[in-house]
Amino acid sequence: MQQLIYMLDLFGVAIFAITGSLAAGKKHMDLFGVVVLATVTALGGGTVRDMILGIGPAFWVTDPTYLIVVVIAAITTFLLVRIKNLPAKALIVADAIGLAVFTIVGTEKAINADVSASISVVMGVTTGVFGGMVRDVLAGEIPLILRKEIYATASLCGAIVFYVIFAIFELETPAVFASFLVILALRLAAIKWNISLPV
Amino acid sequence: MQQLIYMLDLFGVAIFAITGSLAAGKKHMDLFGVVVLATVTALGGGTVRDMILGIGPAFWVTDPTYLIVVVIAAITTFLLVRIKNLPAKALIVADAIGLAVFTIVGTEKAINADVSASISVVMGVTTGVFGGMVRDVLAGEIPLILRKEIYATASLCGAIVFYVIFAIFELETPAVFASFLVILALRLAAIKWNISLPV
Amino acid sequence: MQQLIYMLDLFGVAIFAITGSLAAGKKHMDLFGVVVLATVTALGGGTVRDMILGIGPAFWVTDPTYLIVVVIAAITTFLLVRIKNLPAKALIVADAIGLAVFTIVGTEKAINADVSASISVVMGVTTGVFGGMVRDVLAGEIPLILRKEIYATASLCGAIVFYVIFAIFELETPAVFASFLVILALRLAAIKWNISLPV
Repeated sequence: MQQLIYMLDLFGVAIFAITGSLAAGKKHMDLFGVVVLATVTALGGGTVRDMILGIGPAFWVTDPTYLIVVVIAAITTFLLVRIKNLPAKALIVADAIGLAVFTIVGTEKAINADVSASISVVMGVTTGVFGGMVRDVLAGEIPLILRKEIYATASLCGAIVFYVIFAIFELETPAVFASFLVILALRLAAIKWNISLPV
Repeated sequence: MQQLIYMLDLFGVAIFAITGSLAAGKKHMDLFGVVVLATVTALGGGTVRDMILGIGPAFWVTDPTYLIVVVIAAITTFLLVRIKNLPAKALIVADAIGLAVFTIVGTEKAINADVSASISVVMGVTTGVFGGMVRDVLAGEIPLILRKEIYATASLCGAIVFYVIFAIFELETPAVFASFLVILALRLAAIKWNISLPV
Repeated sequence: MQQLIYMLDLFGVAIFAITGSLAAGKKHMDLFGVVVLATVTALGGGTVRDMILGIGPAFWVTDPTYLIVVVIAAITTFLLVRIKNLPAKALIVADAIGLAVFTIVGTEKAINADVSASISVVMGVTTGVFGGMVRDVLAGEIPLILRKEIYATASLCGAIVFYVIFAIFELETPAVFASFLVILALRLAAIKWNISLPV
């Protein structure tokens, strides 16, 4: 079922491209600046994962679909935002969905690269959080991951859930759903009720 | 005509090393801090390009000339600035020249690595903008690429011009000249008249 | 005597994980945010070194010990800080020790990868300074390397001392000790008496 992970990956790329565009829009960047920030946000996490695992060239170099998805998502967001203001929470919710999807994709890709359980989980978290972290640093914001509410913790829990169900029980679709729900629920609950771990 | 691209690459490295040194000088960094920032600025873009393309080790590891050029450019700039104040625009103009040269070198190196047209163009832009972006983040400035005037757009246009003339018509020297002029003209016009894309 | 370098590497990882945790603690990050910042600080420099040298996967992917050391160091620091305030200089002194250890490890690993003398020294400095630089950028601080006192210069001197004694005279243990003392002495003296190179 590589197909499911591929679709998820493209979906995550689109979502993170949108968050990159929204962050760029808030900083009054021009159209191409928006595309650049969208690209770094959408492809950054997976690129770092591939570099660390020693898998080169990066996943999007050999499959132009990724770049096309980024550009379409970025331009569409750029145009939509000019027509209609998005609610302030749009970026944070989209970021939560992207975090969930990329954590799952990153964990599965690491499992397929035959690394240990702990490294697979770390690669899931890296894929999930890295793009958004760079987006925030470049946009001059404090990265979401450094703020008080549960963020990387949600990604970690989801990666573990995915690993256990997929690598041990070999059930891919349930693993994807369970992990997605865990991450999204944790992250949205954390935002809504300001839940945080001890500081 | 690998010779032409090699000379351009060294020239771009020297230019970006100078911009790194100027940025470091403005932050009152010491001599070796200046050399470090010059190195990251001058070699960062090409290193990221090589990593993404899965070409390792990075280009400057196997050819010490690059490092020597960086160190000489950085120390010379460091000493010159102590003698004579440079005009405020010096950094921005040098950055524009470096952007043009590195975009050309990056696009050609990607073409030689046999990747698709869109990836070649993206690698040209990456090589052109990455070093300067890291320089600005490290120096605590808002990256030039995030400011209002045309920046990455100039690099993108130049990369496309280079790709079309070089990969399709196989004319290297004209491709280099045309691309260089396009990027420099766009970037300097943007600075002079404050031209920007719609925000 | 790979054993000595391996022990030093793990020690450096623990030290930098502690500095990452302290930096995260100052920013009131939660437990897992602390672990993430500790991981990036502790493994960042060596990862970049391996990527640049074209050695993939990164050193910690194939040996889970590194990750275990990071997590234990981060959690221990997190808990200790809650019990007892650390003196303000703790982070800076720990950072100096980590800088010394990672410079040595990075230089030796580069020598083992058969690169030239100048690249070996640069890789030592890269391994030494990169993790701390990312830590400071992510925590929203001005990187130590950009401040006035001798920092990268200490790492550079130590890397040269190590290279000369180890690569030329083939004496590993003396090389480690001499290099460690040079870096620590330079860095601590610089902090204590505010010594800096000309600006």
